[in-house]
This record gives sequence, C-alpha cells and structure tokens, in this order.
Amino acid sequence: MELKQAFDIVRQRSVSICAPLQTEDYVVQPVVDVSPPKWHLGHTTWFFETFVLQPNLKDYKVFNPEYNFVFNSYYESVGARVIRTDRGNLSRPGVADVYKYRTYVDEQMTLLLAQDISPELHALITLGLNHEEQHQELLITDIKYILGHNPLFPAYQEDYSFKERSITSSDFIRMLAGIYEIGHTGNGFCFDNELNRHKVYLEEYSISNVLVTNKEYLEFMQAGGYTDFRHWHAEGWDWVKTNQVRSPLYWHEVDGQWMNYTLKGLQLIAPNQPLAHISYYEAAAYASWKGLRLPTENEWEAAAPQLAWGERWEWTESAYLPYPGFVKAPGAIGEYNGKFMVSQMVLRGGSVATPPGHSRITYRNFFHPPLRWQYTGIRLAK
Amino acid sequence: MELKQAFDIVRQRSVSICAPLQTEDYVVQPVVDVSPPKWHLGHTTWFFETFVLQPNLKDYKVFNPEYNFVFNSYYESVGARVIRTDRGNLSRPGVADVYKYRTYVDEQMTLLLAQDISPELHALITLGLNHEEQHQELLITDIKYILGHNPLFPAYQEDYSFKERSITSSDFIRMLAGIYEIGHTGNGFCFDNELNRHKVYLEEYSISNVLVTNKEYLEFMQAGGYTDFRHWHAEGWDWVKTNQVRSPLYWHEVDGQWMNYTLKGLQLIAPNQPLAHISYYEAAAYASWKGLRLPTENEWEAAAPQLAWGERWEWTESAYLPYPGFVKAPGAIGEYNGKFMVSQMVLRGGSVATPPGHSRITYRNFFHPPLRWQYTGIRLAK
Amino acid sequence: MELKQAFDIVRQRSVSICAPLQTEDYVVQPVVDVSPPKWHLGHTTWFFETFVLQPNLKDYKVFNPEYNFVFNSYYESVGARVIRTDRGNLSRPGVADVYKYRTYVDEQMTLLLAQDISPELHALITLGLNHEEQHQELLITDIKYILGHNPLFPAYQEDYSFKERSITSSDFIRMLAGIYEIGHTGNGFCFDNELNRHKVYLEEYSISNVLVTNKEYLEFMQAGGYTDFRHWHAEGWDWVKTNQVRSPLYWHEVDGQWMNYTLKGLQLIAPNQPLAHISYYEAAAYASWKGLRLPTENEWEAAAPQLAWGERWEWTESAYLPYPGFVKAPGAIGEYNGKFMVSQMVLRGGSVATPPGHSRITYRNFFHPPLRWQYTGIRLAK
Amino acid sequence: MELKQAFDIVRQRSVSICAPLQTEDYVVQPVVDVSPPKWHLGHTTWFFETFVLQPNLKDYKVFNPEYNFVFNSYYESVGARVIRTDRGNLSRPGVADVYKYRTYVDEQMTLLLAQDISPELHALITLGLNHEEQHQELLITDIKYILGHNPLFPAYQEDYSFKERSITSSDFIRMLAGIYEIGHTGNGFCFDNELNRHKVYLEEYSISNVLVTNKEYLEFMQAGGYTDFRHWHAEGWDWVKTNQVRSPLYWHEVDGQWMNYTLKGLQLIAPNQPLAHISYYEAAAYASWKGLRLPTENEWEAAAPQLAWGERWEWTESAYLPYPGFVKAPGAIGEYNGKFMVSQMVLRGGSVATPPGHSRITYRNFFHPPLRWQYTGIRLAK
Repeated sequence: MELKQAFDIVRQRSVSICAPLQTEDYVVQPVVDVSPPKWHLGHTTWFFETFVLQPNLKDYKVFNPEYNFVFNSYYESVGARVIRTDRGNLSRPGVADVYKYRTYVDEQMTLLLAQDISPELHALITLGLNHEEQHQELLITDIKYILGHNPLFPAYQEDYSFKERSITSSDFIRMLAGIYEIGHTGNGFCFDNELNRHKVYLEEYSISNVLVTNKEYLEFMQAGGYTDFRHWHAEGWDWVKTNQVRSPLYWHEVDGQWMNYTLKGLQLIAPNQPLAHISYYEAAAYASWKGLRLPTENEWEAAAPQLAWGERWEWTESAYLPYPGFVKAPGAIGEYNGKFMVSQMVLRGGSVATPPGHSRITYRNFFHPPLRWQYTGIRLAK
Repeated sequence: MELKQAFDIVRQRSVSICAPLQTEDYVVQPVVDVSPPKWHLGHTTWFFETFVLQPNLKDYKVFNPEYNFVFNSYYESVGARVIRTDRGNLSRPGVADVYKYRTYVDEQMTLLLAQDISPELHALITLGLNHEEQHQELLITDIKYILGHNPLFPAYQEDYSFKERSITSSDFIRMLAGIYEIGHTGNGFCFDNELNRHKVYLEEYSISNVLVTNKEYLEFMQAGGYTDFRHWHAEGWDWVKTNQVRSPLYWHEVDGQWMNYTLKGLQLIAPNQPLAHISYYEAAAYASWKGLRLPTENEWEAAAPQLAWGERWEWTESAYLPYPGFVKAPGAIGEYNGKFMVSQMVLRGGSVATPPGHSRITYRNFFHPPLRWQYTGIRLAK
Repeated sequence: MELKQAFDIVRQRSVSICAPLQTEDYVVQPVVDVSPPKWHLGHTTWFFETFVLQPNLKDYKVFNPEYNFVFNSYYESVGARVIRTDRGNLSRPGVADVYKYRTYVDEQMTLLLAQDISPELHALITLGLNHEEQHQELLITDIKYILGHNPLFPAYQEDYSFKERSITSSDFIRMLAGIYEIGHTGNGFCFDNELNRHKVYLEEYSISNVLVTNKEYLEFMQAGGYTDFRHWHAEGWDWVKTNQVRSPLYWHEVDGQWMNYTLKGLQLIAPNQPLAHISYYEAAAYASWKGLRLPTENEWEAAAPQLAWGERWEWTESAYLPYPGFVKAPGAIGEYNGKFMVSQMVLRGGSVATPPGHSRITYRNFFHPPLRWQYTGIRLAK
Repeated sequence: MELKQAFDIVRQRSVSICAPLQTEDYVVQPVVDVSPPKWHLGHTTWFFETFVLQPNLKDYKVFNPEYNFVFNSYYESVGARVIRTDRGNLSRPGVADVYKYRTYVDEQMTLLLAQDISPELHALITLGLNHEEQHQELLITDIKYILGHNPLFPAYQEDYSFKERSITSSDFIRMLAGIYEIGHTGNGFCFDNELNRHKVYLEEYSISNVLVTNKEYLEFMQAGGYTDFRHWHAEGWDWVKTNQVRSPLYWHEVDGQWMNYTLKGLQLIAPNQPLAHISYYEAAAYASWKGLRLPTENEWEAAAPQLAWGERWEWTESAYLPYPGFVKAPGAIGEYNGKFMVSQMVLRGGSVATPPGHSRITYRNFFHPPLRWQYTGIRLAK
C-alpha cells in the first residue's frame, strides 16, 4: 500500500473509533493508566508534528506551541510535559480544537507526502502510523473503562460486537526440544524490541490450541480461587486483598448471576467466549490451580504458526527484557521501548481491539502485572 | 418577592454563570474540593427533586432514579453516593442531560408553586434557593480553578470584571468593651448555624475599616514572610513547606513581575485591590508579621454595621462551632450545617462571587484552614 | 517549695515512671504521636541544657553537640531536628547514654541552682519543670500504648492501679446566666495560653457532676452508636469508617466479653469507672446520642469550683484559640503554645496520669479531634 | 560435615554476628525492608520449631504459642502474622527472651539430632540451616542500615573490615555461542529455584573479569549520570527524581569529599574497591553510560567457572522467573521461592556478607529493582 493511503486509513480510523462519543466522554481520566480520548487524538497528532513535520517540512508552522506541553506523553527529550495524572483535569484544548489540530497536521502531512520521501523518513512515518495504531487500541480500552466505570453503564454502541469464536473444545500441541529462531525477520515494519533475530534452545513443551473461556474461569472462582493464597504470587495475593478482587474486571454479580460490561452495555457472561480483562496475577493463579503454567514468550513464538491467535493479548511467563544484541534507536525515538524494559510482563498475540494487520507473531506487547483494562487472556502450557 | 419569582431568578442565575463555558469545562475536577460545573447544576436540582418534589408533589415521577447516586453530595440519609473524588470521572450524564434534568424539575416546581404552599414548605424551598446560591458562588470559584489551572490559561470571559474599589487609606474603628448580641434576629431567612441570638461579652478592641491589599501583602512576601517560621502556626508552616507555597493562589511571577490569573485571564497584580485567595494560615501569618491579629467572629459581627464588607470572605480567628442553644433540624436537612462543626474556621462577610443579597452580617461561612480557592481576604484587628 | 527541691522531685519522677521498663521498651515508636520513652527522658533534659544551662551557667559544656539533632522536638529556632516519625528508628544514643546525659545535666543544674537565681531564670526553670511534668504524663500514656499494642499484652506493673472512684449516681449542676471571669490569676505558675484573665458572658446552662462511665458508653455501643451516622460529625464518621472503629481504644471483645488493656494487663471492663481513651468525635457522638452536648471550656471553668475533676481529661466543645489579649513569649519559648492554636480541641481537668499538682482549673490541654491515647473522658452539659 | 556440627556452627554464627550490638540495636526497624536483629534471631529459630521440631520430635512443647504470631515471616499456611511494617514496634519479647528461645530450641534440636534422621528430615534441617545463613547476611546488612542511618554514625566494630581485593585492571572474557547447561546438578544442597538443570542457547558474548570500582562509578557521577535521563529506565528515572538520589547508598559528601559509611564508621571512599549498595536502576544506567550492558543470569552462570566472584551480589539483566520444569515443594516449604517469581531481578555471585560456603555458581538471589541495602555491585558485559 502507498504510504499516503496508509496514512489516510490510519488517521481516519482514530476518528471513526471516537465517532459514537459524546463530547464529555473525550475529557475524563478515571484512573491513571487510562487517558482521555481527546488526549490520544492530540498526542498521536503531536507525534507527527514533532518528529515528522518539524524536522522535515520546510517552513512548517507549529499549530500551537503550548500543545507540546499538553500532548507530549513521556518523551523526556522534548521538553516539559503535563504530568500523567493531570490529563483528566484539562478541559482545554477542547475537542473541537483537537480536531482542528488533527486536520491541520493531516493537511501538512499531505503536503509532505506529495514530496520525495527518503527511506529514513518513510520508516519514521511508518513508525508514527504504528504508534497511532497502538493508541487506537488504547482508545477502545480507555473508552470502555470510562463508560464501564460510570454508574449508568452507558453503551459505546448499542449493537456493537466483536467477532469472537465460541470455544467448545481444546487440545495441547506438542513442541519438540531444540533450537528455535526468535525475533523479527524480513523487510516489513517491526518495533526495535523485536530485533534482532536470535537462537534459543527450548525444552520439550505443550501449548494449548485455544484460550481459557469464561466458563472455565468461573469454575476457578467457584472453587475459591480468589481466597486460596497457594495459587498466587505473594504480590498477587497482596493485590487481591488490598483491592478486594473477586472476579475479572467488568464482571458484576447481579441477583446471583454473573454479568459483564461490554461495549454494548451490561450483558450476561458468554460461557464459551475467551476470558478477558484479567491481570498477570490472575492468569498465573488460574494456571497454578489447573496444575499447569503460562508459556514463555519464546515458547509462544515458536508455536505461533500452529496457533489461532488474535482475540486476546496472552500473558506469558516472560518478563519484558531486551533481546540479545538489542540496540535502541538514537534520539527521542529511542525512548520508544527500551526504557520500559523492567518490571513488566510480555503479552503475545493481539486482541479484538487491535487494528487489523497491526500485530504479528514476533510482536511483543507488555504491561505491568496488575493491569487488566486491556483485552487480556490466558493460554495454558505444560 | 414572590417565591415563584425568587425561584425563577435563582435558577436562571446558575445557568447564566455557566453560559460562557465550553462543554468540556463542565466535566473536569482538577482537585477534590472543586466539583465539575455540571455536578453543581445537577446537585442543586437534585435537592429540589429529593427534598421538595418527592415528598410534596402528588404523583411526582423521578427524572432518573440513578441520578440520586450521582448528584447526592453528602446526605448520608439519602442513600449511596458517588464518592467525592470520583465526580470528575463521570462523563455521563452529559451536559445536555443535566440541562434536561433542570428543565424537568423547574417545570414540576412550577406546578408545585402554583399550589398552596404551607409555611414549612415555603421555608424548605427558600432553603433550597439559598443552597443553590451557595453553589453559585462555588460555580464561579470552581470554574476559576478549572480554567486557572489549565496550562493555556483561558479566560472565562475576555472582558469580565468584578466591581472592586481601590483601597488607598485605612483606619481602625475602636469598639468598647461590653455585652453584644450575636446571631440572627427577625423574620428573614437564615441558616440554622446563625441561631439562636445570644449575648457575648467583648473586651475593648479595634478593627480595620478596610481589607489588606495586594500591595501590602507583597511587602510581606518581599520581607521573607514565607520563609520565617515565627509568624506561622506549626501546621501552617508544614503546609508552606510541603506545598512549597510562596504566594497566594493564582499568583505567578513572570519575567520578574507578579501577575495573577483572573476571570479575564492573566493580569498584572492590581496593587490597591483587596488581596484574595489566601489560606487561614497565610492570613494569620500576615497578621502576626504586622504585630496584629485577625478579629474573632463576634468582634466582626459587633462591628459590622460600621464596616464596608462584601468584597472578600474574611478569615476570622474563630473556629466553626455551635452557638449556645444550637439545635439541628430534623431529618436529612439537619445534615446541612451541624456535622461540619469541627476543624474549620469561620469566615465573615461575602465576596465578589456571592450572589447579591445572599449574605448578611450574621452569616457564618466556614472552610478548612488550608483552603484558598474561594475569594478569601484579610481584615486586621488589635 | 524550694526550686532545688522541686527540681529534684520532678526530675526523679520521670526516672521512677520508667523504672518498670525493659531496655527495649524505651526504644520503639509504634505510631507517630507516641514517642520512645528514652526520647522523653532525653528531650526534657535537652530543654534544661538548651534554654537554662547554655545561656546561664558560665563555661557550661554541652554534653554532646549531636544530641540537639536528636532531642529537639519542634523548636524551629534551635536548629535541625530529627523528623518526628523517625524517633523510633534510632537505637543510639542508648538508654544508658540517655541516663548519663540526665545525670550530667542534673549535676550542672545543681551548680546553677546553688547560685543566685534571677526572677526570670526562676520562671524559666519552673517552665522547664512544668514541661517535664507534661512529658511525664506522655511517658505513661506512651508506655501504655507501646505495651498495649504488643500482641503479648505485657503489664507495665502486675499490681498497678490508679485510684479511681466508682460512679453510681449523677446529677446536673445548674449555672446561671451572667458574666464570668476566665483565665489565670494570682502569682502561681501558669502557661501563657491561660492568660490573660478576661470576662465572658455565659447563657444559663447545666453541667454534670460526674463523668460518663464505661457502662453508660457500652449502652451507646450496644444501641448501634458506631453505625449510625446521625450522631457523628462528618469527619468523625469518615474516621470511624476508615479506621473501622467500634469501641474505645484498648477495648477488646474476647469470647463475647468486653475487656480493656490497663497498666496491669488485660482486664474485664469496670462498669462504674469513668470511660477513657475516646476521641473528640466519640465524645461528641455520645453526647448527641444522649440528646445532650459537651460543655464549652468557659462553661467548664466557670463551674469547676463545684466539680470533682482530675480523673480524666474532658473534651470540651471549644477549639483551642488564643484568649483576648494573648501574647506569646519572645524567642524559642514563645513556640510553646501559640503555634498550635489551630485545628485542635481544648480538654479541661486532668487525668490519673497527670502529675499531682500539675493541673488547675484554668489549665488548657489540647489535642487533635481523633487522638485518644490520652486518658480522655466525657462530661455532659445541656 | 556432620549435620549436628553444621547445626552448631550455623546457629552460633548468628549469635556471633550480634555480639557487638547494644540491646537497643536489636529492636528498631528504620525501613520496611530491614528487620530488627532480634526478629531475625527469633524467626530463624521459629523455622526450626515449626517445621522441624513440631512435626518430628515426640512430645515437643512449643516455647511460647504466641511467638508464632510474632516470628512468622510470610508463610501464609502457618497462621496470622504480625504485618511486616510492625516488626519495629514490638519491644517484647525482649532480647533476653529471644536468646532463651534460641537456647531452648537448640537444646531440643540436639535431642532430635541424636536420633535417627530420615533423608527427608535431613533435607529439611539442611534447608533450615541455609535459611538461617540467608538471614545472617540480612543481619549484617540490616545492622549496617540501622547504624548507618543513625545521625551519630556509630561503628558496628571500630576495627571491622572485610577482605576485599583492590581492582586495578580489567579485561573481558569472550564466550562462544552455543548450548550451555544451566541449573544445579550433583548431590549437594540447592534451593528449588536452581532446578532443574536445562539447556540454553547463548549467542557469543564477552563478560568482564572484575567488578566496577568506586572510582569508575564516581566518574559516572561526575559526568552527570544522575541528571541525564537517557541512561535510565523510565521507572528508574522516576525513582531518582522522587528520592533525589545522587549517589550510592551510604555515600555522603563531606566538605567536598566523598565518604561512605562502613561497619567501622564513616570512611573515605576507597577508589579501587568494588562499588557497593546500588540499585538495579543504577547498575543498568551505569552500563548504558559505558555503552555496555549487564550480563543475563545464563551468561553469568556459563562464564562463572572463569570468574572470580563472591565480593558483591551482581545485578543481572534477568528477571526472576521459574526455570523450565520448575516445581515448587509441597506444603509451607513450597512458599519459599516460587511465590516471589514476579517483578524482581536476579543477582548472582555472593557478597562479603554471605556466609562462607553458602553460595555457588547456580545460586539465584533476587531483589526488587530499587533495593540497595545489600552489598550489590556491577559486572559489565557486551
């Protein structure tokens, strides 16, 4: 696909995701990990303005110099930023102004894309598009959090539904011991954390061909899974007690029945759908209760060609660490991945909220162990 | 004035105050003491719905039963409430829905007001109007906080200004020792905390006929007032150090000049205007630095007929405590004042943001010592 | 009594209070308001060293210059201090060293007291003795806290008991409206906060001739006092819920019976003894539940000549504020009282832990509303 | 060595480590990660009483049933425990009682060890001894923390010193790519986390033959290492700013010279000694500044036979995770290691405070990234 066409598609998709929102929904930040939708719209735009247009488009005029202060996320190299917990306190710039900002930057990008694009610039714009795709997934999960934590439980769209298969049987795929190659290869886009491709030795293992379902997880709950410390990491057990956790996020027991909040509102739990919105602690506790374990990210990647994946981000038993020979990019872009390589766990696969084509079998997603507002699920191994 | 007319005027004023806002400004809560403007609009409406319409208008149908959960403030008798820090996390009900709610309740109130109104109901509605007037002042100060803490410093209205006199001279009024009567008398409306009228004995004292100005306070700052613990209460000194306070709220030193954020944006300090936005700690420290003190609320009330007041809420040296013979009203309305009578200081007078006619010389406002987002000022005594 | 004799008696009493302790008991600080006993012993000594000996005894040699850093409490004028929460982290100076410090300072004081003592110095030493007496009361209550919060519930002394009368009947004393004089008079010692004597006008009131008993308070508990918000100040209700308070401090329900920790260990509640260890919130809630109120400090003082008092510090409905004409002493000694005159409530009377002769009817004790590790009780008024 | 002899040696070493302490030093807990020395003495004793004597010595009588409440650390299976932050609030049981407890349990263990010991029991006692050796290292580092954070900077022993070599040259050892075997093998004792031995594939790498010295780290400091975010993980950078870190723990700049607190008191920095007391964040930032990296734990173990190690625990770039085929032991002993396998980093080697013979090349130590009160150091790789 042409870069210009890709740019237009990606930029439009962010706008489409927000189409069902009321103005007020763009503004709030109910918890630190969630950002206001208007912030995502502004921040992805700021990325193109700051890293693409300013250095590369002659005579480019910044839309509003104060926006750098508002829409920078965590790039320490690019000046002061609004501290993260404050994002939900900012009523200005308003939603209309943010859309004007998008339009302005898109027009300027169109000018730039009409020119000769060097391979380096091409790569940078592609990075910007992949960056925006990541924020599109966050847009969906953050909107879900904002609406799903409102006492009125408003739907995002009354008739919204993801395509999700029913899981009614499962099996384990056996993988032989030996040397496997891990990491990205080929000419397509990848993030720096997927490089470089390297050998690993894996002992023999087996990995499930499906994800754990709501029904299976409910059995864990009903067997007292949340009250038996033996299945939990010590810090997971503290997390359960401190937060009085007794079910996945968005689950509510209403008149004796388990329901969950979905993008079309409160619904009965669908027993055969893949479980979602659990923390690493819950994933590991469930696996322990089953007498099994989570796969490592290497085991996952080695088996991936034989797996159906993409409906849930799958917690692995691997911490997010650099691959052998990892080198971070120079400049502010180098802050993209490497600086997060501590205290987080890797998730593999992709989710119903991931933009089509965004993920791949070498893709390394990562979150802190207690976080569960993403569409996270469990695949078992042994 | 007719009750119906009073009702219409008060209800309209809340709407007028919000007229210059963008939708986004209605939603955010940058700090726990500030509420989102749409919450004020909904809560004052909920007051009429819950305490006036439900018990008194036949066949009254509640607008939305879930709104009680959202718009109750602190009336423990009336069911679960959204905890206060969560108000800024709620994008729904949206601003348009809140205005619909207001319209609906106003229509129903119109029906009720067309009927015979018992003296008790008249008193209750009058309380609701005075309650709404209190929230009108909060609307102004909360809007100022929301816009004044935005990095873009947007104006509320470009040409907005309060009528404020220049203070260029001052004098002390001498009051003789003796017995004075304190508390409300007469048939007009008052809050329960102003009752009952009782005698106090005051020693001889003097009280300033004007408020402290910005210029005078700047002298305190330039004399090192914020760095000399001797003028401060112990907890005030902790407050200064913990929060690194070095000026009143909304003051910013820009290129060596002191400016303050006002409702028309960032402005140069007006030297002869009364100082605003200081905490009790700052008021007391300033008085100590001058070798003077703040008046008690009794001293203030005794002298009030000889004072020009109403431009700033004036911190007194009195804690907020019940008057002799204080009795709180029965039921939920009884939660109005009495339960706050600990750990707060009394402020007397009124401010530029107080609705006209709302305050009186027996009026007892109260806030916690560190709070300063109201228009608070200093009057000295000795 | 001679000053030298008073000095010896007071200094010895601190040592006697600590005699039953193990070395380890001198060291810990289980909560910020409690100080390690060795700190009290050192701090009271540091007071004499710093304010009496250094300025007044020729060639006085400081025992250890680093002790100022350890034993200063809150006198900002006298240099850096160990922040208060850190006191329990300091194993050194050890207990033996602190006793050496006391001996050294006592010897030097003996030299000084053998000289001519000016009236000013006499007053200063008397202040130091009253200061040490205040810390003697804290020593007892802090030791009780340290031992009473240990899972082994060790006794301070197996056979320790205070003299406390049984309360089996009660009555209200009626006081007429009129002008009363409040504040200290005469030549005896008093703190600056008791001055100056001034007139107040009191409305007619009645005040109980006895304190509330354990049995009476148990009725409040059994009537659901801790679960009915209507009796509580808003911040008191938050305190109950946040801390899950359901009884006075040191009360434990063991096998269906209420016991309390006393200095001789866990004991059955004595029904007719005066209630102790309740917060201001609990005192006010109890009074509200009875349909009565707490007296103001002025009411208490006016009635005091007709009351038996001294078994419990009695919460009043008065905030701790300066009297008319209050002037704080110059220099570091001036930090003694005035700087605490915000956000605290006055207690009157004295307790079983107060050194004999220390209190008087003009004495103003003060604590923050939630604190209850002192021997605090309730006297009702109406 | 005979088990009885090993038991006697290990138990005596704990006592010897505490010999230089004053009673007060046994009691305090200045920070949550540090435990009072008397707690270590009691807890290691409780381990033998609970897991060895109670199930295995006929008619064994528990020393004091309440000690379980005090000396359990984190074994959820064995009943309620004093929450960790409370350890420093407990003056009782006193030091003498803790030593009586040790003597009693040692006597009972002597009775048991005179009987036939099954292989399972032998393994359990050996685990208890290795457990106590781990606490011996903590005893030293906790005592250092307690004394080194006292404003008087008392020495542990005036003439105490570890044997440490001067490092004056360094080289990199080149390791070839290939399959290596990782994990414990043979009949000796190991922890469950070292099992089971398994193959890994390593790419070619080089590893330094020495640790980073104080002098080298000082160069990093002087080059602005603590003020340049580019070398730091994002959460490391937050840690630096929040805690205002500007040097390793125990370093103090005195009159322009860097000194550090050692067990013999404040000393000038020894330039050629290995750096100690740095967090994982600092280790990683230093490596980044040098353009190098930390080794993984597999790289470390593969190279270990060619390394001199044992003077510092060496941070690796590996998170603490289970080995392939890891199985945790049944029962409470199973809580030993597995439940900590999240959010911690592996350290390899051993330190000057590690009991002789305790560590080995397969040994996996682990701590959270910000912790630095252990003797932690840096070995570089590339």
